[in-house]
Amino acid sequence: MSKQELEVLGQTDACCPGLLTAPLDEDQAAELATVFKALGDPVRLRLLSMIASRAGGEVCVCDLTPAFDLSQPTISHHLKLLKQAGLIDSERRGTWVYYRLLPQMTDRLAGILTRPAGEPLPQPAQTSAGAAS
Amino acid sequence: MSKQELEVLGQTDACCPGLLTAPLDEDQAAELATVFKALGDPVRLRLLSMIASRAGGEVCVCDLTPAFDLSQPTISHHLKLLKQAGLIDSERRGTWVYYRLLPQMTDRLAGILTRPAGEPLPQPAQTSAGAAS
Repeated sequence: MSKQELEVLGQTDACCPGLLTAPLDEDQAAELATVFKALGDPVRLRLLSMIASRAGGEVCVCDLTPAFDLSQPTISHHLKLLKQAGLIDSERRGTWVYYRLLPQMTDRLAGILTRPAGEPLPQPAQTSAGAAS
Repeated sequence: MSKQELEVLGQTDACCPGLLTAPLDEDQAAELATVFKALGDPVRLRLLSMIASRAGGEVCVCDLTPAFDLSQPTISHHLKLLKQAGLIDSERRGTWVYYRLLPQMTDRLAGILTRPAGEPLPQPAQTSAGAAS
C-alpha cells in the first residue's frame, strides 16, 4: 500500500458509511475492502487479538513472534499490513518495536456492521412458489 | 470452500470469541479470516451493501448486475463467496436468484469488533525514552 493510500484511510475516519444502510460507492468500498482484507488472514487476526487484548495496551514484537511457527520477517510483514490498514500503531523503543491497537478503526468497523437501532431487517416471505416478479 | 467448511461456519455462530478481549486460537482465527476475506473486496462489499440496504430485504440478481461493469458470471462468483462466508443467502424463484442478508453474521462480526462495555482500552504512556523493558 502506498503512503498516499494510507493518508486516504486516515482522512475517512470521520465518514463511516453504513454497510447495511445504503449502497457503498466505489471509493468507500475500495477503502473499506483494504481494512477487511487485512483482517482476512488467520495470522493477522491472531496478532491483532494478541495486541488488542494485552493488559497495558501494547505488546513487544518480541512477545508476539514466539506464538507462531513463522519467521520474524513474516510476522513483521503481517504487522505492517495491519498497521497500513489503520488497525494498529507501532513505536520503536530501543531494540524492540511495540504495537498497540488503534480502537478508532475497530470501532468504525463495528459501527458499519451494526444494524440501525429500531430497524430490524425485514425477512422475505417463507413461501416462494410463484412469488417471483 | 467445501461443504464441510460451510457447516463449520454455521456451527460456530454461538461461539463469538471477542477479537479484542482475548487471543484467538488457530481455529477461531481461521474461521473468522474466511469471513473477513470475503469482505476484503470492493465489489463484494458493494454487493453486500446493496443487498443489506434494500427495502424488502432481498434483491434479484438481475438488479445487482447492472450496477457493475462486470460479467454476470463474475458477479455470481462474488455472490457465491459472500454466501459461502455465511453473509448472505439465496433462493431461486423462476428465472432469477434472489439474495438476502444473513444478519446473524454481520451481528456477530460487529460483536467481536466491539470493545467490552466499561472497559476502555488502556493507552500506553506518551513518553517513550528509556521505557523499553
